[in-house]
Amino acid sequence: MLKTPYLLFLGDAPDALAAKVAQGIKDWRPDHVVGQLRLPGCGADMKVADMGLEEAYAAGARTLVIGVANRGGVISKAWMEVLKDALRHGYDLASGLHNLLKHEPELVALAYELGRALHDVRVPEVMYPIANGIKRAGKRCLAVGTDCSVGKMYTGLAMDAEMRKRGLKSTFRPTGQTGILITGDGVPLDAVVADFMAGAVEYLTSDNDADHWDHIEGQGSLFHVSYSGVTMALIHGGQPDALVLSHEPTRTHMRGLPSYDLPSLEALRDMVLPIAQVANPNVRIIGISVNTQHLAEDDALAYLAEVEGRMGLPTVDPFRQGAGRLVDALAAL
Amino acid sequence: MLKTPYLLFLGDAPDALAAKVAQGIKDWRPDHVVGQLRLPGCGADMKVADMGLEEAYAAGARTLVIGVANRGGVISKAWMEVLKDALRHGYDLASGLHNLLKHEPELVALAYELGRALHDVRVPEVMYPIANGIKRAGKRCLAVGTDCSVGKMYTGLAMDAEMRKRGLKSTFRPTGQTGILITGDGVPLDAVVADFMAGAVEYLTSDNDADHWDHIEGQGSLFHVSYSGVTMALIHGGQPDALVLSHEPTRTHMRGLPSYDLPSLEALRDMVLPIAQVANPNVRIIGISVNTQHLAEDDALAYLAEVEGRMGLPTVDPFRQGAGRLVDALAAL
Repeated sequence: MLKTPYLLFLGDAPDALAAKVAQGIKDWRPDHVVGQLRLPGCGADMKVADMGLEEAYAAGARTLVIGVANRGGVISKAWMEVLKDALRHGYDLASGLHNLLKHEPELVALAYELGRALHDVRVPEVMYPIANGIKRAGKRCLAVGTDCSVGKMYTGLAMDAEMRKRGLKSTFRPTGQTGILITGDGVPLDAVVADFMAGAVEYLTSDNDADHWDHIEGQGSLFHVSYSGVTMALIHGGQPDALVLSHEPTRTHMRGLPSYDLPSLEALRDMVLPIAQVANPNVRIIGISVNTQHLAEDDALAYLAEVEGRMGLPTVDPFRQGAGRLVDALAAL
Repeated sequence: MLKTPYLLFLGDAPDALAAKVAQGIKDWRPDHVVGQLRLPGCGADMKVADMGLEEAYAAGARTLVIGVANRGGVISKAWMEVLKDALRHGYDLASGLHNLLKHEPELVALAYELGRALHDVRVPEVMYPIANGIKRAGKRCLAVGTDCSVGKMYTGLAMDAEMRKRGLKSTFRPTGQTGILITGDGVPLDAVVADFMAGAVEYLTSDNDADHWDHIEGQGSLFHVSYSGVTMALIHGGQPDALVLSHEPTRTHMRGLPSYDLPSLEALRDMVLPIAQVANPNVRIIGISVNTQHLAEDDALAYLAEVEGRMGLPTVDPFRQGAGRLVDALAAL
């Protein structure tokens, strides 16, 4: 688990897109953010205070989170100086980069000497068990998509935020690196060894209060042949009580698979339900979340209404409209 | 890929069951077996020549295969002497043990010095790609089970053997440690990192002659919540043209999951077909293999006839009856 709050390291990110991990933290866990640290030439701005290491530490920051992708997959010399300085100032480091902090001998040696932690959130830090399938207390909700990257994480975060706003018991359970950096905890499921995937999800979503909801971050798609095994493990390890179908209506083919068409929402519904019933016979599909970012407002609303009529389920874009109706549907279960 | 042929190391196996990996090699690849090496007290016998290291090497053996489970998960001192001696005599070593050869510094040092290979077939030796889903040339058959350990590997080996007996083009493609030791090559799928599972299966079953069949070793079950993600990756990475449903009729619950009932063959059929159609719209279920080892001959034959009538598919126990009718069904596709 990462120590909070964070100082967000934006490095020399050329634009906001390159700093989308930092943006996610700022959007969803503003309380975790003390400030941002930018290098000369940085074009991204989280609209929080620019701070140096000393100032942010004094303001409470305990982890420097690398909130930006590095260019060319190399940790530059300029970055390295900042990271070493951060360790010296008392920070742990957290990163979702492909090249690991743990593979940088200078950082490893310094962190060891100073007793700091290096968190590479792409890599599991836990020996997960084999899943046992035993029914757990508490409730769980999972978004499953017609494709990868259709807004499943956003849906879970939005439902969790809405529930907490209403004073209901709720936890977002990340299964990918951005989610883990946002909340400070989770399972990097795509890096878990096959036999332990479902067990890792059970570990992530253990027993809880009867009226508590875990919002499990979805991954992949049952229809995406590269990653469908990960999705399957999420469904059977998570044994969700509620499913949300997620879709992006302007996609012309499955992400990264030009010869694969997207399934219809009906096809997803018909495939996922019997699969999810294996782990939880009482599972219900409670709604649909649509990522309408590529549609104009009128077109988006018309599309949502059309889907809602066709599927008979509350259908929203949680970004445009909030997740209130999805949370209403959970409450009605 | 393991160098063949093998000398089978049975160690001090108390009985045949403890040496079932060696038995599998002897049964399915007798041409790979030069002889067996047994220590005092060994109660297993593969009915092949007992040989020392020197004699077997002279007879062509190039890999010493540990064909037995070790007691208590420790490589004993007596074993270690044999393994080191084998390296000195010119052998590579191959093992499916939980504790790895690569974790024994004495073996690592000696193998390095002598230029020998240590093959721990539980551990991937290849960096597998992410699956690309592109249609490959050649044909593929996969057995999918109502549960784990219902005879999927045996079914694939039997179909492969029958096809080769008929002079047809066929390869068994192992995805587990026993299968890998039997054939000398394959992918230890349960040890592959989640994101690369389907890609590992694509790698294993690459382009081939149009009339060539890969018989992919099945793993897990879509209905087994601990391992269903592995099964999913096999189906989408393997993009099978033909499926065989596998079942063990005396199982009272899912293996290792006392609170989970087995699905019916109908439920398996209805779930697997739309999943497999994602990767290959032309996939067909061509038959059913039943492991009837716990049924008397009459009961077994009656059960097979009942299932065949109910499901409308050729239904055999490949161990009792051979895989001829399943191969006939493949040929009829």
